Amino acid sequence: MADQKKLVAEITSMDEDFTQWYTDVVIKAGLIAYSNIKGFMVYKPAGYALWEAVQKHLDARFKAVGVENVYLPMMIPENLLSKESDLVNGFAPEVAWVTHGGQEELQERICVRPTSETLFSDFYKDEVHSYRDLPKNYNQWCSVVRWEKETRPFLRSREFMWQEGHTVHATMEEAEERTKLMLDVYADFCAEDLAIPTIKGRKTDKEKFAGAIATYTIEALMHDGRALQSGTSHNFGDDFARAYGIQFTDKDNKLKYAFQTSWGLSTRIIGALIMVHGDNSGLVLPPKIAPTQVMIIPIQQRKAGVLEKAAEIKEMLKDFRVKVDETDKSPGFKFAEQEMRGIPLRVEIGPRDIAEGKCVVVRRDTREKISCDIASLPEKIGELLPQIQNDMYERAKKHLEEHTFEAPDKETFEALFEETKGFVKAMWCGSRECEEKIKEDYSVTSRCIPYKQQHLSDVCVCCGKPATKMVYWGRAY
Amino acid sequence: MADQKKLVAEITSMDEDFTQWYTDVVIKAGLIAYSNIKGFMVYKPAGYALWEAVQKHLDARFKAVGVENVYLPMMIPENLLSKESDLVNGFAPEVAWVTHGGQEELQERICVRPTSETLFSDFYKDEVHSYRDLPKNYNQWCSVVRWEKETRPFLRSREFMWQEGHTVHATMEEAEERTKLMLDVYADFCAEDLAIPTIKGRKTDKEKFAGAIATYTIEALMHDGRALQSGTSHNFGDDFARAYGIQFTDKDNKLKYAFQTSWGLSTRIIGALIMVHGDNSGLVLPPKIAPTQVMIIPIQQRKAGVLEKAAEIKEMLKDFRVKVDETDKSPGFKFAEQEMRGIPLRVEIGPRDIAEGKCVVVRRDTREKISCDIASLPEKIGELLPQIQNDMYERAKKHLEEHTFEAPDKETFEALFEETKGFVKAMWCGSRECEEKIKEDYSVTSRCIPYKQQHLSDVCVCCGKPATKMVYWGRAY
Repeated sequence: MADQKKLVAEITSMDEDFTQWYTDVVIKAGLIAYSNIKGFMVYKPAGYALWEAVQKHLDARFKAVGVENVYLPMMIPENLLSKESDLVNGFAPEVAWVTHGGQEELQERICVRPTSETLFSDFYKDEVHSYRDLPKNYNQWCSVVRWEKETRPFLRSREFMWQEGHTVHATMEEAEERTKLMLDVYADFCAEDLAIPTIKGRKTDKEKFAGAIATYTIEALMHDGRALQSGTSHNFGDDFARAYGIQFTDKDNKLKYAFQTSWGLSTRIIGALIMVHGDNSGLVLPPKIAPTQVMIIPIQQRKAGVLEKAAEIKEMLKDFRVKVDETDKSPGFKFAEQEMRGIPLRVEIGPRDIAEGKCVVVRRDTREKISCDIASLPEKIGELLPQIQNDMYERAKKHLEEHTFEAPDKETFEALFEETKGFVKAMWCGSRECEEKIKEDYSVTSRCIPYKQQHLSDVCVCCGKPATKMVYWGRAY
Repeated sequence: MADQKKLVAEITSMDEDFTQWYTDVVIKAGLIAYSNIKGFMVYKPAGYALWEAVQKHLDARFKAVGVENVYLPMMIPENLLSKESDLVNGFAPEVAWVTHGGQEELQERICVRPTSETLFSDFYKDEVHSYRDLPKNYNQWCSVVRWEKETRPFLRSREFMWQEGHTVHATMEEAEERTKLMLDVYADFCAEDLAIPTIKGRKTDKEKFAGAIATYTIEALMHDGRALQSGTSHNFGDDFARAYGIQFTDKDNKLKYAFQTSWGLSTRIIGALIMVHGDNSGLVLPPKIAPTQVMIIPIQQRKAGVLEKAAEIKEMLKDFRVKVDETDKSPGFKFAEQEMRGIPLRVEIGPRDIAEGKCVVVRRDTREKISCDIASLPEKIGELLPQIQNDMYERAKKHLEEHTFEAPDKETFEALFEETKGFVKAMWCGSRECEEKIKEDYSVTSRCIPYKQQHLSDVCVCCGKPATKMVYWGRAY
């Protein structure tokens, strides 16, 4: 047990220092290593496996709504980036510039893509001629570079992996429909695969994406009460089409500009997984996304028959993602490691269990120990995994609900941000001035104008003038 | 039929101009679009789907031999790249240099990875301490940048997608074993999934990878008789470990340098798929890798019941990758398009077929037309797909064999390269001088020293001195 204590002792308690707890878990669970360039991370096998699981589930959801994958260049010439002024103003301060190819200086510098609206627009300009060519619902899985000043594993890095969908449509209505459809895909993915409940809503004009007419977002609440923007979907109207010249002949034989959307979800979502479900022993992974769902841990493994029985159990459980920890570490260390890595279930099997035809199953999320006949183990695991998935979602939902407050007036609004952590719902007049004042006074930002509106009062929580919208406010990563 | 003729007429005949045929197929089959930066390509849905299929099959083969996926940064600082002198000399002339991040000039310029030996070595230096940490068999799927002068879709581009595996071992023997194992994985993948036979062998010192002790290769033969290096696997010995300081304490408690390998296969392999199997109507895809295996084409689709029957057949064939072409194009155009895209089978279904409970199945590879009861279609398709896969391999193998020649002496060697196209096997003394002279005189390069050696004569085909090896020579892409 000394080993186990030591391993767990290496994680800072999340109640003492949440930020340090997060860093400890990321490192100790073997997700990330720092590289020798600031802000560039190494995804180790356990970290990359999470991204592979995200890709697999999300890509299947994309294909189910008619999305096709493509791949566009990682480089953008400066003149192409500059064509849409909002976008270039939004991104130019943070791109990496390539000035030399081999020994030669380039005639025009090119940047490593920070996002690919410009490239997709330039591509669509040549691909779209008639209404018959529409819509195009394309997506790419890639990495992008933004020269951030402050970086943290998964949450903010200079290079990060994501998917970026870019679609083009004949009408504004269809573009708006696709924008909202993809937000629903993200929300369903978070809820059903990651067990993370989110708030769906629209960003204020201040917080929307550079160049977008409307940005929709899903906002999740971390264990420490801070918000994480977890996926966004943008409607560009025909602004990019006008800047890049994407025109098509419609059914009525008239030449029209096309309408576009984009939507992205990144490796940030792994940060959400850690901070929504993790505890003081490390990661807690939802079974659907867990690269390993069951770790079999032999006890007194040098005794005759123990490793053989462990292998036999692994074979019995082949419908699940199962491993046996056969290393020469102590059982206590193996338990701690399985907990640190967030593997949903462990099966303990030793000589005495074998003699009785039994084993012990331990849930990672609740630590509940369940004695189980070896013969009925496949059935038991088959019940437990969806149960854990469901319980994890319900706990996260309860946490979200218990940390979402209503502020009908200014005093309550102030008091809530002083005394509690979480989302605060409050009425807003719609002015940018109030939004900025609230940010200045309380260090919180508008997270979204939620789809589900409530009428908490008649007036803006900041200026007292008539309110038009209810907004979620919070401190965000 | 006018439509069909038009579509096919847009492809240059491969016998007239193989290079133009290749470009035509790449564009007309919708695989690639050119971007507005030289040497950077857009992978359109049909092109990217091929890469996804390659990834899926190859990744499963990697996982079966204990490979784990990771992701390392796309940027390398200049000082890190420079540590291994052979490698930096090999790659420095062709890397893209980033000099500015946002508005600031970087203190040290960094390059976009042309390959990641340096990054993996720097990473392993911190991860490997004891023999217990070994081996590590890591791989990443990513894109790399090399500032090539001449570029062609799939075959050579400034950015290309690939996988690069990088492993670290306790002994030279284990590294050599892994190097060869991964070459076997590539060869099996090409033969079994892509229906492409290859020659396994070792590169000469002149042709080996910068910094490697030994490079192994698989060489495929294209339809025009030129070779394509299709996958390589390198043994670095402990050279990189010495340059980057990767040391571990072995079982005997001594501090030792580790041994490394790397191996890569890129989107070039899609070029091989096109040039080995394609014909004058376009692509011909092996069923295992084809994103769509069966295209159902309704005839007179406006007549009652035709589209319904097509949908019913699609449902019957749900164990396969099936689509229905319901567009308002003519059947002739649809046939030509299915052929252009290389879909292995099409099912033609019209009112008369439906009345008789029959349909027509057409093989893409042989154009054979098979009348089939609709009721037994699933069984028939289930037989035909593996048959096509097998026949395609056998045809490619026959082509390879018929275009591989033996040159026991200089005269035959010369005559073969003047009169024929393909591989020429000949004896070699092992000297770099002869290799360079052969290249100069006949514009051919040594493709590999094959595993399967033959004794064709006692002397080198170039200098007449005693021969040590039999070599495959050829013109290569």
